[in-house]
Parts: sequence; C-alpha cells; structure tokens
Amino acid sequence: MTVLLCGRFDPGEQEAWLAALGQACPDEVFVSDRADPRATAADVALVANPPPGALQGLPRLGFVQSLWAGVERLLADPTLPPAVPLARMVDPSMSAAMAQTVAWAVLALQRDFFRYARQQRAGQWLPGPQRRADDFPVGLLGLGEMGAAAARALTGLGFPVHGWSRTPRTLPGLRCHHGEAGLHALLGEVAVLVNLLPLTPQTRGLLAAPLFARARPGLHLVNLARGAHLVEADALAALAQGQLDELVLDVFAEEPLPPGHPFWLHPRVTVLPHVAAQTDPATAAAVAAANLRRWRSGQPVQHLVDRGRQY
Amino acid sequence: MTVLLCGRFDPGEQEAWLAALGQACPDEVFVSDRADPRATAADVALVANPPPGALQGLPRLGFVQSLWAGVERLLADPTLPPAVPLARMVDPSMSAAMAQTVAWAVLALQRDFFRYARQQRAGQWLPGPQRRADDFPVGLLGLGEMGAAAARALTGLGFPVHGWSRTPRTLPGLRCHHGEAGLHALLGEVAVLVNLLPLTPQTRGLLAAPLFARARPGLHLVNLARGAHLVEADALAALAQGQLDELVLDVFAEEPLPPGHPFWLHPRVTVLPHVAAQTDPATAAAVAAANLRRWRSGQPVQHLVDRGRQY
Ligand SMILES: NC(=O)c1ccc[n+]([C@@H]2O[C@H](COP(=O)([O-])OP(=O)(O)OC[C@H]3O[C@@H](n4cnc5c(N)ncnc54)[C@H](OP(=O)(O)O)[C@@H]3O)[C@@H](O)[C@H]2O)c1
Ligand SMILES: NC(=O)c1ccc[n+]([C@@H]2O[C@H](COP(=O)([O-])OP(=O)(O)OC[C@H]3O[C@@H](n4cnc5c(N)ncnc54)[C@H](OP(=O)(O)O)[C@@H]3O)[C@@H](O)[C@H]2O)c1
Repeated sequence: MTVLLCGRFDPGEQEAWLAALGQACPDEVFVSDRADPRATAADVALVANPPPGALQGLPRLGFVQSLWAGVERLLADPTLPPAVPLARMVDPSMSAAMAQTVAWAVLALQRDFFRYARQQRAGQWLPGPQRRADDFPVGLLGLGEMGAAAARALTGLGFPVHGWSRTPRTLPGLRCHHGEAGLHALLGEVAVLVNLLPLTPQTRGLLAAPLFARARPGLHLVNLARGAHLVEADALAALAQGQLDELVLDVFAEEPLPPGHPFWLHPRVTVLPHVAAQTDPATAAAVAAANLRRWRSGQPVQHLVDRGRQY
Repeated sequence: MTVLLCGRFDPGEQEAWLAALGQACPDEVFVSDRADPRATAADVALVANPPPGALQGLPRLGFVQSLWAGVERLLADPTLPPAVPLARMVDPSMSAAMAQTVAWAVLALQRDFFRYARQQRAGQWLPGPQRRADDFPVGLLGLGEMGAAAARALTGLGFPVHGWSRTPRTLPGLRCHHGEAGLHALLGEVAVLVNLLPLTPQTRGLLAAPLFARARPGLHLVNLARGAHLVEADALAALAQGQLDELVLDVFAEEPLPPGHPFWLHPRVTVLPHVAAQTDPATAAAVAAANLRRWRSGQPVQHLVDRGRQY
C-alpha cells in the first residue's frame, strides 16, 4: 500500500511526521513529495492543510485522513474527490491541550490576571475584588471533542458551564443548549464565551455584532476555533463600546496576524499564534495508523467527516 | 460577649467584615475601634493583620481568631498574650481561590503563555513547540489547606505533582516528600516549584541560591506564600544566569512592591499585588462565627496555631 503524506508544514514538522508514522506503521511505504512519480499510486493520503488540488489525479485513492482537526479548507477544495471517505484528526493529546488553553484563559479572565499584567507594566499595585468561580459561568460553543474536553476541565475547576451544539447533547455537569433558541438562552447567562465550533457555512461569522448585542454587557470572548468565526471589525467596535470586555484570540481572518493589525496592540486583546491545540505527531500518528489499518481491513474508519453538514 | 474586630483594612473592607459578621453572629456585640472604651471588655478578638500591641491590655481576652491564613506577624508581636488560643483562617473559598491561581500560573508556564504575551507586545507571531502536562512535573512546597487544594486542581489537569511537607503526608495522586532529603528529591524532578509554605524560622529565606542550584536548570518559580520566603537578590541573579526561567510572584519583601524595584519591569517576572487568595468576608465570617460558638460553648476550636512550630 502506498501512503501519500502531503500538506504545508513548519520547518522540521514533516520530518517529525515521517518519523512518527514510520514507527506507527512500519509496513507502509510513505511518499512525502507530491511530485514524486510514486505519489500517483497512492491508496491513502494523510493530509495536513494541503494546497488546493493536491489530491487530484490519484486514481487509486480510497481514503483521506486529515492530520488536522478542522477540515473546512479541504472541503472548500473543489478538486477533492467527492466519494472518497475523509476522516479528521481526533487525538486525545490535542483535546487535552485545548482543555488546558481554555482553562488558562477562563481562569485568567475570572481572576483578572490580564488586567494585573497591564497594571504591572504601568507599575501599578492595585489589588481588586476577587470573583468566585461559581459566579463566573462559561459558555462553550461546540460540544465535540474539543468542547467536551474543555467542559471537563472547567467543571473540575468549579465553573458553571453552559454548552451549545447543533443537535441535543447531554454531558455530565453541564447545562446543554442547542439550536437558535438555545444560543439565545446561553448568551443571557454567561460571563465568558469560548468558541470551539467547526467552521461551516452555518457558523462562519457567528461571532458578530448581533450576537454581542444579545450577550451580557462586558462579555469576555475566547476564540480558539477559526478566524472566520469572528467578524473582527465588529469585535473592535464592541470592545470600544464596552459590549466586549477582554478577548483571547488564537485564530484570525489572516494568519499570521498581519503587522499593524489593531489586535496586536489593543490593551484588552490577547493574541496567540494559533497554538491553542497543536497536533502532536507522536500521538496523532498512532491515531492515523489505527484508522488506516481499519480502512485496509474493511472495518469502518473513525471520525468520518459528514460532507453534508461539513464537519 | 464582646468581640473586638481589629486589623488593617483596605477602604470598605472593615464595613464588609462587620456586615458579614453581623449576619453570621447576630447575637454578638462587635467593637471595631480599638480606642473604643468597650474594647477593653473584649472576650474574643477577630484580627486581620493588626498593628503590633493591638491585643495588649485586654484582661478578659480568651480567644483570638485570625481572619488571615498566615499568622507570622501576629506571632512576631511580643505583646501577644502567650496563653490565649489563636486560630487561623481556613476558608474553603480561599483555598479554592489559591488553587485557581496555582492552576493558572502552572498552565501559563507549561504552555508558554507568558512568552506569547511578550511576543505579542513585540508584534511577533512565533508558534513554539507544545509541552504536554505529563512532561511538566510540579513541586508544591507545603501540603496544608492551600497545598492540598492546589494539588487537587493540578492532578485534575493531568500534571504529575510532587509535594513537600514537614511531617510525612499521604495525598491521593501525589508523590509526597518531607524533610531535608525529601526536598532534595523533589527538586531533582520538577519543572516548576510553587511555594505555599507558612512563614516560620525554618522556611524564611528557603527560596535562595542554594535551593536554585539543586533544582533542574531553567526552573520556574511561583511564590504565593510570603515575600520573606524568597531572597529577592538571589532570584534576580538566578534569572540572569538562567538557573531560573520565569517567576510568578504574588508576595514581596516589601508590599506594595516599591516603585523602581527590578521585578516591576523584568521581562520574565509576573508581579501580582498579593491577590493569589483573598479572604472573602461572606464565607470567612461564617467560619469565624462557627469557631467563636465552639469556643463559647467549651468545645475545641478548629485550626489552632501551634505556637511551638509557629503555624
Ligand atoms: N486553534 C486551534 O489550535 C485548534 C485546534 C484544534 C481544533 N480547532 C477547531 O476546533 C473545532 C472543533 O473541533 P472538534 O474536534 O471539537 O469538532 P467536533 O468533534 O466535530 O465538534 C463540533 C461541535 O460543534 C457543534 N456544531 C457544529 N455546527 C454547529 C452549529 N451550526 N450550531 C451549533 N453547534 C454546532 C457540533 O454539534 P453536534 O454535537 O450537534 O454535532 C459539535 O458539538 C475544529 O473544527 C477546529 O476549527 C482549533
Ligand atoms: N498570597 C496569598 O494571597 C495567600 C493567601 C493565603 C495563604 N497564603 C500563605 O499560604 C501559607 C500556607 O497556608 P495553609 O493554610 O496551606 O497552611 P497550613 O494548612 O498550615 O499548611 C502548611 C504546610 O506547610 C508545611 N510546612 C510547614 N513548615 C514546613 C517546613 N519547615 N518544611 C516543610 N514543610 C513545612 C506543613 O507541613 P505539615 O503538613 O507536616 O504540617 C503543611 O503541609 C500561609 O501561611 C500564608 O503564608 C498566602
């Protein structure tokens, strides 16, 4: 079997993947250059944010495993073979990393640690009142792999948690909402909103003026999913008007965030360089390998993307 | 019964205490001015960091309840009546606040969020490698009320935790060490050290060059207990030499931290204005009231300070 590894990698990242994959599936032949003539014989493609068209002209291709959790760019590629099953990455160590980022951001907002950092830079010693976790309800948009892991961390730390999904869900210790009415109910309750939705036509641009207007004044917003979920101009206006208080952003309309973008120096915006939850080749290669074995032996593969709902 | 409330309070704080105490013990007479002639009839004193000498000349005084967790300044007052039982504050909402601060600081250090904040201010988009929680062992100095609460939060988030106490302890999910040899063992293991010790003659100045030299190079240090635990000059030297990597400090030799102190602008030092765990009058008044009732009815009071060991 020939396995094509293809995508856009940071320096050293492709080598790390090849090493981890070689360990996880010692019997497979990996081709890591799309221009390599052997690539056209690929049975399976492992992809990490590949350039559009990369999966064209692979007549034997029977299975695509994404090494990323989000697959919106793959689905937007009109050359993606429509009938080939596509799985996304679900890696417990990525979910753990996301839960850590959420816990850190929510704790920092609850306990005013971003404000204390600003005061330190101004040389100000100004202890403020202390908010209790049970007075700081958190809203999670998305109750999938990422949302469920974040919910466990937050409830463990004593935060009341509200969650939102497309279909009705039940998770232990959470108030679960769904659909349009559910979002409205959640927005009336929470002090901070954490976005962990996939990017789909339904969720694109959701974090915008109409939503901010329905939330409690001074809402804190944490976007760890995709830049296109947020209408950046609306966020800046809501910050200026006090509708939003603090923002923690890991993803942006354009990445890297362009020099001079107002988020860089905004005192109430924390900019992270898309690091909320990185895929760890060491653990993710094993996940990909297990799925690959399932596909080859004719068993159902896991974490299939539903082309209809687009996640 | 006459209850004297005495201490040094921030604006509005004394009023908050009186309101909460009035609710918790509606039958007691509270005197909140030491100069009030009724003060000399006090049976009980509730104290929050009182000025030295404040408890002198109270012939009926039978019980002192501190509203602070740390009592080292009270014990250092030579006029403190030696035979009167002294209890310190143990308030579950204060322990919860401390656990939140510890979780936030450890997550920020594990996931490099302080570094990303510096990079944001420099306009740099530089994603770095992601550390796993199970690769980031935490050492807790002190396994009392604060240490135990912090340990629960950290183990819940997946960190390996080592703890240190004076006497042998067993806590679920922790590697517990004690005494001088135990400290040495712990220092060889941990990536970050969190200080939650009481200030005693044995612990004063513990966080100093000899300890840093025994730790793993690039140790992160979080001091949330007392400023006098840390030899500040040694910390600055160890930062310069790379023996210490990042510091998170909530307490200082002099508070407020004086203007111009090198900690204010050090890029790898986070300064908090003594807010790691504030006493919440709403919950702490109930704790104090319960102890007061125990004392009056001749039952053993809780959280007695041992004058010999000084905590
Ligand atoms: N910043 C980073 O480093 C990073 C890292 C990894 C992932 N991510 C982002 O996180 C996203 C979520 O990943 P995941 O693994 O948790 O995805 P997932 O398991 O597919 O979960 C998606 C969740 O979103 C809900 N949802 C989808 N469309 C919705 C809609 N229109 N209205 C309400 N809820 C909707 C789903 O509802 P149902 O439960 O009803 O299906 C589900 O609960 C990824 O797509 C990616 O964009 C970011
Ligand atoms: N920054 C803030 O906002 C803030 C707020 C609250 C408290 N604090 C600080 O936190 C401190 C701890 O509070 P707590 O309520 O957790 O105290 P605690 O319940 O009395 O616990 C003290 C712990 O320290 C250990 N210990 C004492 N002396 C030791 C020594 N020489 N060597 C090794 N271990 C030693 C004790 O060991 P054993 O178990 O063997 O007795 C115990 O585990 C307070 O004293 C205060 O200074 C700071």
